[in-house]
Amino acid sequence: MGIDAGSGGKVEDLHFFYEQVKQVHGRGLWQTEGTAKKAATLPYLWKFEDFRPLLFKATEMVPIELAERRVLVMANPGITSDWQASSTMLANLQIILPGEVARSHRHSASALRLVIEGTGAYTAVNGEKSYMEPGDFVTTPNWTWHDHGNEGDSAMIWLDGLDVPLIQATETNFYEVYEAEQYPIVTPDDMSIRLFGGGALKPSWVKHNQYFSPLLNYKFTKTYETLKAMSEHTDGSPHDGISVEYANPMTGGPALATIACFASLLAPGLRTKAHRHTGGTIYHVIKGKGRSIIQGKVFHWSEKDTFVVPSWHWHEHQAESESVLFSYSDSPVITPLGLYYEEALKEDNGHQKIEGTFEALPVPERGGGVQQRRTHSK
Amino acid sequence: MGIDAGSGGKVEDLHFFYEQVKQVHGRGLWQTEGTAKKAATLPYLWKFEDFRPLLFKATEMVPIELAERRVLVMANPGITSDWQASSTMLANLQIILPGEVARSHRHSASALRLVIEGTGAYTAVNGEKSYMEPGDFVTTPNWTWHDHGNEGDSAMIWLDGLDVPLIQATETNFYEVYEAEQYPIVTPDDMSIRLFGGGALKPSWVKHNQYFSPLLNYKFTKTYETLKAMSEHTDGSPHDGISVEYANPMTGGPALATIACFASLLAPGLRTKAHRHTGGTIYHVIKGKGRSIIQGKVFHWSEKDTFVVPSWHWHEHQAESESVLFSYSDSPVITPLGLYYEEALKEDNGHQKIEGTFEALPVPERGGGVQQRRTHSK
Amino acid sequence: MGIDAGSGGKVEDLHFFYEQVKQVHGRGLWQTEGTAKKAATLPYLWKFEDFRPLLFKATEMVPIELAERRVLVMANPGITSDWQASSTMLANLQIILPGEVARSHRHSASALRLVIEGTGAYTAVNGEKSYMEPGDFVTTPNWTWHDHGNEGDSAMIWLDGLDVPLIQATETNFYEVYEAEQYPIVTPDDMSIRLFGGGALKPSWVKHNQYFSPLLNYKFTKTYETLKAMSEHTDGSPHDGISVEYANPMTGGPALATIACFASLLAPGLRTKAHRHTGGTIYHVIKGKGRSIIQGKVFHWSEKDTFVVPSWHWHEHQAESESVLFSYSDSPVITPLGLYYEEALKEDNGHQKIEGTFEALPVPERGGGVQQRRTHSK
Amino acid sequence: MGIDAGSGGKVEDLHFFYEQVKQVHGRGLWQTEGTAKKAATLPYLWKFEDFRPLLFKATEMVPIELAERRVLVMANPGITSDWQASSTMLANLQIILPGEVARSHRHSASALRLVIEGTGAYTAVNGEKSYMEPGDFVTTPNWTWHDHGNEGDSAMIWLDGLDVPLIQATETNFYEVYEAEQYPIVTPDDMSIRLFGGGALKPSWVKHNQYFSPLLNYKFTKTYETLKAMSEHTDGSPHDGISVEYANPMTGGPALATIACFASLLAPGLRTKAHRHTGGTIYHVIKGKGRSIIQGKVFHWSEKDTFVVPSWHWHEHQAESESVLFSYSDSPVITPLGLYYEEALKEDNGHQKIEGTFEALPVPERGGGVQQRRTHSK
Repeated sequence: MGIDAGSGGKVEDLHFFYEQVKQVHGRGLWQTEGTAKKAATLPYLWKFEDFRPLLFKATEMVPIELAERRVLVMANPGITSDWQASSTMLANLQIILPGEVARSHRHSASALRLVIEGTGAYTAVNGEKSYMEPGDFVTTPNWTWHDHGNEGDSAMIWLDGLDVPLIQATETNFYEVYEAEQYPIVTPDDMSIRLFGGGALKPSWVKHNQYFSPLLNYKFTKTYETLKAMSEHTDGSPHDGISVEYANPMTGGPALATIACFASLLAPGLRTKAHRHTGGTIYHVIKGKGRSIIQGKVFHWSEKDTFVVPSWHWHEHQAESESVLFSYSDSPVITPLGLYYEEALKEDNGHQKIEGTFEALPVPERGGGVQQRRTHSK
Repeated sequence: MGIDAGSGGKVEDLHFFYEQVKQVHGRGLWQTEGTAKKAATLPYLWKFEDFRPLLFKATEMVPIELAERRVLVMANPGITSDWQASSTMLANLQIILPGEVARSHRHSASALRLVIEGTGAYTAVNGEKSYMEPGDFVTTPNWTWHDHGNEGDSAMIWLDGLDVPLIQATETNFYEVYEAEQYPIVTPDDMSIRLFGGGALKPSWVKHNQYFSPLLNYKFTKTYETLKAMSEHTDGSPHDGISVEYANPMTGGPALATIACFASLLAPGLRTKAHRHTGGTIYHVIKGKGRSIIQGKVFHWSEKDTFVVPSWHWHEHQAESESVLFSYSDSPVITPLGLYYEEALKEDNGHQKIEGTFEALPVPERGGGVQQRRTHSK
Repeated sequence: MGIDAGSGGKVEDLHFFYEQVKQVHGRGLWQTEGTAKKAATLPYLWKFEDFRPLLFKATEMVPIELAERRVLVMANPGITSDWQASSTMLANLQIILPGEVARSHRHSASALRLVIEGTGAYTAVNGEKSYMEPGDFVTTPNWTWHDHGNEGDSAMIWLDGLDVPLIQATETNFYEVYEAEQYPIVTPDDMSIRLFGGGALKPSWVKHNQYFSPLLNYKFTKTYETLKAMSEHTDGSPHDGISVEYANPMTGGPALATIACFASLLAPGLRTKAHRHTGGTIYHVIKGKGRSIIQGKVFHWSEKDTFVVPSWHWHEHQAESESVLFSYSDSPVITPLGLYYEEALKEDNGHQKIEGTFEALPVPERGGGVQQRRTHSK
Repeated sequence: MGIDAGSGGKVEDLHFFYEQVKQVHGRGLWQTEGTAKKAATLPYLWKFEDFRPLLFKATEMVPIELAERRVLVMANPGITSDWQASSTMLANLQIILPGEVARSHRHSASALRLVIEGTGAYTAVNGEKSYMEPGDFVTTPNWTWHDHGNEGDSAMIWLDGLDVPLIQATETNFYEVYEAEQYPIVTPDDMSIRLFGGGALKPSWVKHNQYFSPLLNYKFTKTYETLKAMSEHTDGSPHDGISVEYANPMTGGPALATIACFASLLAPGLRTKAHRHTGGTIYHVIKGKGRSIIQGKVFHWSEKDTFVVPSWHWHEHQAESESVLFSYSDSPVITPLGLYYEEALKEDNGHQKIEGTFEALPVPERGGGVQQRRTHSK
């Protein structure tokens, strides 16, 4: 800004002035720019093959009773907090062994599960159990009691998505442990699927005025069948292929108050066109193999990998084999505030110039953590 | 009111005064009460067995090209217009023979079909065909081009529900005939089922900001399967049994802008509890046999019959065999205006005193009074 | 339609068939068209100078205790019911003498007052009094207790607007008389003006989740001042001049659930451009002199006159002297149903060809046909 | 958590495991708790008398051309970023000298001004000027061009409120400098007051579908007059006294998409009752003298001071002389997400136990900045 040099007063006067301002917990606005950088969400990819052995290792090292949830976070190296995948969301991997129970608690943060491996475990929400299978999308809406238990005979692994950084940023974090290990079962298993999973048929006697979907488990078999049926006669979205939102059947809105969730089918060889929009998005590969190009860099992915596209980053996808991408985004937070912007790439028929390939970053010696005001020009 | 007798002036002065008022197209408000009765919706039931032979007779008497639609209306004897089933809605029976086409038109009135007999006929809406089977609920939303054709080898009959009296009461009637017999097919058959019938999964790339559901056909097989699945673990509504609303998957709202539509499963022997609410409701028996008690009177119904429960009339249902009732109501019109009221019967454990049995009314001698369909061309 | 002549069968067979259909309370849909005409809203104008002496005459002839309200309706000669001004609304003139009270009642119909003459009378709504002055727009929302009393020393006259025909068409009419002559005063006079009249400032502690505005009286002095201030820098709407909607300050929506209300300032000499839209509109001349052209016909109006523009009729206004038109419309009913359509006249710079001048219609000999007010007790 | 000690493996194995996890940018979720604390919003108060001389000093030291805006931020000592007043908002003081112009720019952050001293300066938004006086509440909605200029003959000081931390947390920050110093004036001065300031009267021809209020300046004279008129007959809110929200007249919603703004009149001697709610709130004393008790601690305030009540902190107010408090809150962000919770204090007639008096914190040697998950129990 050049104020130090260019101001009317001498530099020593200026520094004396700054010190005076500091004493009253003030600051020159001009001092806050460019002097320190806040790290920001980086486009990043975590390989499942890296995490899988560590998850099993964790089952040996970390008793579930001590950890409450046996979870490894995928930390975005661009963010100093060391545990967020994006500016507002977490992407974690949870493992639960046969016979284990992850005890009941509730929080104002919203959570979702996308099942990766195993069968026989359930999620129970407010006393309704749903057994989970690979590809299932399971909701645990904010402030609902939930626990998990594995009644099968193999380990079960899933992706946990949460909005905790947003909850922290707004200082609205509430958390409570249930008085017993498990909330009592008060509803028949999968009752919500019976009531709300039947297509565009809404039980007329059920009042549900909450901010989230009443449907607890969107079964993958149905999702996949729906995507395939659509794909016979349409190419879907130019940017996302055949893409469905897991909707709240009572409103058509997002499944969770703060998180919109999607499944996208990409035909083998399909290359979508690039666009960018505000709102960070985390992708998880349910099925298939391919690559995404994010801000000019190629990210190769295969089944069970997880990657993040930060807000306002160009991105496009290309499937090598038939692929299904699960994704979740904080768009429900920013859209009602007028902060959702979107832009399609016009150049080169909608395709970015490729400028490199993603490589995992080395782990830095900690200490940095500078702040930056990120400024886009819309 | 006793004004004639009780007024300060002499009766002849009063009548002279009334005449003066009349000359300027005025009227005393007090004159408008109690002197004459406006006919109002009566609870009524039309037996399908009465209408079926007449529908086939009509196929001999009335060429479809001349009638535009070969339709018999079920006229509520309480309403002088001679063609409405309720204060705001029509309930008609349509028959179409193999090889016939009911030509394309559109109107600001909303319409629905509930299929009664036959297969092989389709409804096409804005260029998308859906073949219909018994029990299917099919929408033709307001101002969409639609035609019907029978490609099968037997006659097909369905119930037509429309909101024409409402459209007339608000003088918003528009009607247009398509330039050719049929609107061109521009969309794969049943594309809307692929896009919107898949449960709580919403195609992310489709913009649909209309006042009505984008889903054209809610197949009965799915509706019945959903009702049965629900019924295993709940009794549903005390007033309606296991009851689903055919919802707009984009909003959770009613299927049509002006008409809410439902399917209710009544277990054999079940007797629901009486309630009353504003909004007229027309019922059609998809399946089963039983009776409804409306304002103390018993209405016996069996498969394919149609009956109407007027606004603010007590009603309860009792199934003899497993029954599915289709119903449609004008509640979307009155609810946003603050005019929806509901009340459950408290006395006698929610059951009305039975005071008689419905019998068809004789047809009165009447001096005409057929209403015109007013048509603007928008 | 030519079915009688053109059908396959003989004419006598057809008539026999029609009779059979009639016996089961059925009807051929094709029979309902074109055979008889339902009267429809006519563009019409009622001169205040015709009604004023009759209102005073009524004070002699009709004691207020007997009439409940001493009101003359302005009946649209196009509508057989003999008491509606438009398809869905009433436009009535009420007179109340010094010392009189129009007793407390409530109804599901919504009502408004536009004050024409006098001061010293109040409207009390749910126990809050507001004294009225010429030009004031006063609401009595649906199902609120209200009474009027004249504490001044001259007669007071106002326009009553109501949605009764709509309420009848939907069979949602409820009406109740209060147990005493007047509902007790429980709120300071004009409290609603203090709370909600202060511009875009909303009392933060007041919950008001009703379908109508909490503001009971929109004072004309403020309305006029606002219109004049706007007019210094804008011409407002091409169709309505400087036109404001009396809004619900809690939502920005219409003042009443079913009726949108407006005040429009027309500069001397201004001629607006013609448009047409669905929704019937009733105009009342608060101030000024001019003419409106409705569907090609000239309607001359001056202060205190009332006229109606039916749904989908071309209309434009022209002021001779500075004029303020009050108007009310059923647009809140039809708009959420997708039935609001609007079109601006493109030809001749937006001006209609003039084809005649309005003249009052003679009163026909008519065989009664007075409509009953149907009353439920909720 | 005790995992280090209690785990099955040896401590050195655990540390080796943690290192492996770290290498793939993972982390044990259990590691993220309690190890590092995020500083959180502290209840805090900044005295205007401390900042006023520094603002004038800044006019000597910092040329406006270099600083873009000559602004001192009030930094919450609980938050490491060193420039936020609360978790999501800024509270800054801006000074502009006669003849100066703060050049035109726009940003996706929303901003408000509350005028403290001086007259003769204007804010121009998208080409409409509004001259500002003490107490005026002025909006510069997100992504609108705005500049300020002082045409008077004395310095002008105001409070700037912005949502920049929220915008950063969601990575939706956009910022653009206008090509010239000032955006051209395209609208008459204070046109928005003419159009939208006139109470519950909405210009019928203006389309405004934005996320923010179209009214640019809510004049203090009107606000004060409204508050006083209300206060004659009500005590208003038990927690806030006579309190109005500056509303969007088109929707009744908040003035800015992300910030709700209020003015509260406290009668001399009035002591409100304590409550707590989510959503951070910044208060500014327009007028008067008194104290607020926040989480048991007394904060003495007088005219022009600024203080913050963090999310979920008990607070109550007590006025010594008649006071008007301006306040702004991030409640519009959290409420639609289901994250707004509120609770009134039940004990001791709604009054907190006083446990101390606020004193300004010393300025720490920088270096800390640890992170904490704040957990309330609702």
